[in-house]
Amino acid sequence: MKVDRLTFNTKHLISALVVAGVKNFVISPGSRSTPIALLIAEYAQYDPAICYWIDVDERSAAFFALGLAKGLQQPVVLLATSGTAVLEYLPAVAEAQVSEIPLILLTANRPQELQDLGAAQTIPQIEPFTVYAKKQLSLVLQDDEPDVTEYIDFKVQALVHEAGRAPAGPVQIDLPLRKPLLPAMGEEPIDPVQPLAYAAMGKRTLDKSQSLTGYQRIMILAGPNVTADYQDQLWRFAQEYSIPVWTDILSRVRTPKSLYGLNDWLTDDKLGSQYFPDLVLRFGKTPISPSLLAWLKQKAIPIWQIGTPADLDYTRQSQRCFEMVPSEFLNSVACVQSDEQQDFNARWQALSPNKGTSRASDLISCLDQIVNPEQAIFVANSLSIRQMDTYFSGKNSHKIYANRGVNGIDGVISSALGLSASQKQHRSILLTGDLSFFHDMNGLMMAKKYQLPLDIIVMNNNGGGIFAGLPQAQCNQYFTELFATPLNLDFQSIAQVYDLPYTALQNLAQLPQLLNRSVTAGPQLILYESDAY
Amino acid sequence: MKVDRLTFNTKHLISALVVAGVKNFVISPGSRSTPIALLIAEYAQYDPAICYWIDVDERSAAFFALGLAKGLQQPVVLLATSGTAVLEYLPAVAEAQVSEIPLILLTANRPQELQDLGAAQTIPQIEPFTVYAKKQLSLVLQDDEPDVTEYIDFKVQALVHEAGRAPAGPVQIDLPLRKPLLPAMGEEPIDPVQPLAYAAMGKRTLDKSQSLTGYQRIMILAGPNVTADYQDQLWRFAQEYSIPVWTDILSRVRTPKSLYGLNDWLTDDKLGSQYFPDLVLRFGKTPISPSLLAWLKQKAIPIWQIGTPADLDYTRQSQRCFEMVPSEFLNSVACVQSDEQQDFNARWQALSPNKGTSRASDLISCLDQIVNPEQAIFVANSLSIRQMDTYFSGKNSHKIYANRGVNGIDGVISSALGLSASQKQHRSILLTGDLSFFHDMNGLMMAKKYQLPLDIIVMNNNGGGIFAGLPQAQCNQYFTELFATPLNLDFQSIAQVYDLPYTALQNLAQLPQLLNRSVTAGPQLILYESDAY
Repeated sequence: MKVDRLTFNTKHLISALVVAGVKNFVISPGSRSTPIALLIAEYAQYDPAICYWIDVDERSAAFFALGLAKGLQQPVVLLATSGTAVLEYLPAVAEAQVSEIPLILLTANRPQELQDLGAAQTIPQIEPFTVYAKKQLSLVLQDDEPDVTEYIDFKVQALVHEAGRAPAGPVQIDLPLRKPLLPAMGEEPIDPVQPLAYAAMGKRTLDKSQSLTGYQRIMILAGPNVTADYQDQLWRFAQEYSIPVWTDILSRVRTPKSLYGLNDWLTDDKLGSQYFPDLVLRFGKTPISPSLLAWLKQKAIPIWQIGTPADLDYTRQSQRCFEMVPSEFLNSVACVQSDEQQDFNARWQALSPNKGTSRASDLISCLDQIVNPEQAIFVANSLSIRQMDTYFSGKNSHKIYANRGVNGIDGVISSALGLSASQKQHRSILLTGDLSFFHDMNGLMMAKKYQLPLDIIVMNNNGGGIFAGLPQAQCNQYFTELFATPLNLDFQSIAQVYDLPYTALQNLAQLPQLLNRSVTAGPQLILYESDAY
Repeated sequence: MKVDRLTFNTKHLISALVVAGVKNFVISPGSRSTPIALLIAEYAQYDPAICYWIDVDERSAAFFALGLAKGLQQPVVLLATSGTAVLEYLPAVAEAQVSEIPLILLTANRPQELQDLGAAQTIPQIEPFTVYAKKQLSLVLQDDEPDVTEYIDFKVQALVHEAGRAPAGPVQIDLPLRKPLLPAMGEEPIDPVQPLAYAAMGKRTLDKSQSLTGYQRIMILAGPNVTADYQDQLWRFAQEYSIPVWTDILSRVRTPKSLYGLNDWLTDDKLGSQYFPDLVLRFGKTPISPSLLAWLKQKAIPIWQIGTPADLDYTRQSQRCFEMVPSEFLNSVACVQSDEQQDFNARWQALSPNKGTSRASDLISCLDQIVNPEQAIFVANSLSIRQMDTYFSGKNSHKIYANRGVNGIDGVISSALGLSASQKQHRSILLTGDLSFFHDMNGLMMAKKYQLPLDIIVMNNNGGGIFAGLPQAQCNQYFTELFATPLNLDFQSIAQVYDLPYTALQNLAQLPQLLNRSVTAGPQLILYESDAY
């Protein structure tokens, strides 16, 4: 009976995940997770909308799922066996928490009678995730009680819903499993689980004190992740009232007409008070530019945060936090046209962004020209994302992604591959430094295995170039060893390990043709020798 | 003042770590950890006993430190910057907890005024480790209060002591740091911190009920990690009273005269009751052989555990647990010689171990012959360690290591490299399958960088061979994709990426010469085509 109940309840688990919106499962092989893996694979035979991916390195797997969920804006399920395999998920789970991505962790475990007795691969699997997961559940599938099946149907959907509810984030379902672990294969599928519906929350309205009519030098700051449901509205609002919009590279609303690349104006304090906003409306998450935030703080500019929690401003400048969906704010807030607002806008628009004169800026300007508007670009942290934020005008593409929750240099290749797997119609691009590239080289196995349409461009500066801009660069004696850490990577051999077509770029004129591959043509690796810093 | 206080207190931190017994620091580059990294490097200029290692992938770094600490039987310090970098430590920290290795984590953090406000690389860094660390401390170095310096001197030593006190394990010191992060370099060293001394605990004695005189078919089970302080004594005791000793491959006391490789006798239930012990004395940790433990349980053999905690027996067979150092038990327990005990011993000694007829057993028998007694062998989990446990007689070497706390397939290369770094006089060997090899390929960067004397032997069976022995092998349709996961690794190119001399072994006759390299000759990669299962 136990095996049948295991099969039956596991099918309910999978069906509940699917009716709640899951379409992708990322599986890392293992023994304890056997029944779940097998029944997911069997389920996918019946339902062509369901996709599963196999990734043997769980660290890579979790970042792959993260990229996939980012690109699809859907929950993605991860499955691992017990032990350290589960802990390998943690870096990506922390990133998912901060960047609000709905990952659903299924972590196979040993049954209670083997806990804390020296049994193999048996460790606490719930506790390390408690501070990062929105919800956690320990679910015993091998339980003959019929109520348990109903509970699975209901509770698993509720968990997936919770993962997706704003602010979205990871959830964990730990699955203690007893041997025998082999499910009954080849049986009829169960009836799909009954879907639960969740009603949307009621609208909120603004009162009179929450009006913009008293301000005439308003600036909008569009941080990362301005969502599609108010992008157009944000621009119409800005145009109607002549409000300049500072756009983070990850805002998804940057255009050449928006404000970006102006950091030098701020750090050198070149701007007189006629440039000081009397109010900044901040949308999205923490922007990348440290100089902008530092300048706003230095000039004591009041900030209103729209749609983000009160505690998401590390400058602690925010005066008001509107915990409402931004489109409702833009719909209902009172604003007026004024001459000063128009002049203020014109002054900011007249400032020229930094075009750059480095090899990095040349590459980014080139990408700016040739990228297809539908192409997604994943950018590594550290120097790459800062350079993109400075130089990329968004002329053709707004689909810029990064792991800008915790800003780790880990998992970059896997995340970009997950993203590329979510973009079926177009090739995607990864722009990374060599250090981030090295950190997740194992991730390239997924590129090889699934021939994902990703153009990987490594801006090679042989180590941690970003440190050259920090004070430790003065410590000549230790700098190279402790910070720059040149890796002297042999990119050609790396390409060979993963069967990647490889090009060491001689000049940027080659790039358009290189990037002009078919979406079915699989991954490639492009080396670009970049600046030391 | 803040920078000076930072410098002063960081020097005290480092000095306290050193006087408490730390000699090795494994550093992963980062910005927030700058002052600690720089001052460790400077400290090492003055003290030739201090060594630091740079490893850019924190997951690898933590496993490297683990291997180093295993080999040295000393605490090893890890240093990472804030954010996901810290979380990359977790798999090795869980392994360190279960296998009782004293890792000292230094995790740089942002100061309190940047916590939980959307600041970059700022996440909860304490909580994920709480369930794995023996102690955790958050230490503010930038504090002008003189008592804080004294506190560092005292408390940091106490933490290192706690890490090393049995059962040993990891501890964490989280270090919130404010900018500016650059310490004052090139100043005079501080006076070394005053060392604390810890007195040993008093001896325990046995009472009369704890006597072996009533037993005449005693067997000793030497599990992993029988420590050097009672190895000889254990053998003398066994010889004096004609007690057969079943030796786990990791016990460090296996010799061809001990019992091993007898699993087939047990799983096939070929042994009559004259082979049943009336008492098993179990030393060390959970042994690898599942058949032995299952057999003892099936035959309801009473077990006494010597020196291990009461709850380290997942068969739940143990009747008595002696929480005392094993040498005291062996010194003071009453035992008598008996004819039946001699016959019992002779019966067991007469059983022939499984010699094997596979390519794996051939390789292991070959190693058994040629390994130098002083050479350490690190063995990957899953199939490799089980095969070693079955076939390796310990004729020449007892220095066998594995990550047998949580049994992960992660971090194997890094752990072996750490181990090899701890063995200055002799080359070390890593024996691994291709899947474990792939999982930690990044770890090879340390082999290249430090030219560590490790001979890496990959027993290639192109994927997860161990699964072929599990029930899921019946599911032909899904087996290869979900479990076997062939990786088709191109070992030659991998060797090239890391500048490793590479040999695809044609026959075992080549092996003695290949392994006969000088300890200064750096790492090499040897491919051995093994059996599918």
